[in-house]
Parts: sequence; C-alpha cells; structure tokens
Amino acid sequence: MRIPILKLHNYLLVSIQIDLDDQSAIEFQEDLLNKIHKSGSTGVVIDLTSVDIIDSFIAKVLGDVVSMSDLMGAKVVLTGIQPAVAMTLIELGIHMQQVSTALDLEQGLIKLRQELEE
Amino acid sequence: MRIPILKLHNYLLVSIQIDLDDQSAIEFQEDLLNKIHKSGSTGVVIDLTSVDIIDSFIAKVLGDVVSMSDLMGAKVVLTGIQPAVAMTLIELGIHMQQVSTALDLEQGLIKLRQELEE
Repeated sequence: MRIPILKLHNYLLVSIQIDLDDQSAIEFQEDLLNKIHKSGSTGVVIDLTSVDIIDSFIAKVLGDVVSMSDLMGAKVVLTGIQPAVAMTLIELGIHMQQVSTALDLEQGLIKLRQELEE
Repeated sequence: MRIPILKLHNYLLVSIQIDLDDQSAIEFQEDLLNKIHKSGSTGVVIDLTSVDIIDSFIAKVLGDVVSMSDLMGAKVVLTGIQPAVAMTLIELGIHMQQVSTALDLEQGLIKLRQELEE
C-alpha cells in the first residue's frame, strides 16, 4: 500500500506509520514528487513519529526526497525524528543541511509557515 | 497496511487512499477510536476523495465509525464523497444524519472548527 499524502492549503502532509521497505520508500518518493508537481505545493511536512528505526537505503531515499523537493521549489520539514533515526542519519553522513526539523506535525506546520513567509 | 491517522491540534485527519477491504476497514475503525481516546481529539476529518466505490460492508463500517466517534465526543466530517459513494450510502439507507460533509480537507477543517465553536 502506498503512503497517503494529504493536501492542506499550500502544504502536503505525510505521516509515515509503517516500516518502510525499499519498494514503498521508492514509491513514496515518486508519489510525493508527483504530488508536489501537480498541486504546486510550496511546503511538505513529513512526520516520522512512528518510525522507530531506518536502514541505510531508507535514510538515503529520505535525504534524496528532501533535496529533490527542494529542487522543485517545495520546502521540507521533518518532524518527530526518534533518537535511533537521528543516529542512523548522522552516522551515514546524511546531514540534511537544508532540512528543517520540528517536534511534531503542528510545530512542523508552524515552522513551514514561518520559513516560507520570510 | 493500516491507514495512517494524523493528529493536528485537536483534530484527527485521515485520508483514505486505498480500496478498503473488510479487514482494513475494521482495523481502521479500531485504530481511529483508540486514537480518539488516547489523544482526546474533539473532531475528525475523514477524506474520501480517492475512494471511487464502496460496498455495503464498508458503508456500514463507515456509518458505524461516525456514530461511535460521536458517542466518544468527537465530531466527524466526511469530505470528498464521490457520486458513486454517495449513491451507495443512500441506497443502503445509511443516511448519516448527524454527519457533516464538505468538499475537501480544508473545507472539512473549517466546518469542524465552526461547528465545535458554536
């Protein structure tokens, strides 16, 4: 099953609540980029609260999604990153320099609004 | 895979973007009621934009979810109901009298806010 992407005003909201396997991660990447293109969204919040652990492949896909969305003109905010996920991302050298993070979905939307209004 | 339920402020957002089979409909019902209980949410928006067609079992589960959420103190707004889905619901006698509807997720949230502030 594909991960649902919700459109709210100019933003897209995604909550990842399954363990991503390689296939669904790739599908998610495609779906998100297509939806950014179709909807003309300027911001994306990806909520990882329910993701306990990620492997190197998923970490790379996630890093790529952020860069690709950025290239398409949509700012990404990652929310709810758990300790183990943060450790994996940093250990793999995926520093996500241009990515903003926030505690939860609400804070992520607030951050997105602030950054896009600047 | 279970349908992700997003929490935004006092509300829960759900976008159903798969064809619900009986098992996932029942799981969704359980998950939503549990999440209402845990989060103390006062409103729920269920977006059906991507649902083309429903059968009698799913229609009944959907009607039940609305009544059950209501009983637990959470107001449900259904959004993006397509013609075929509307026809199935009415033909099956599921009139959803106490349920509000709206065109899309944004309108659904606005409606929820209005009704809960009344």
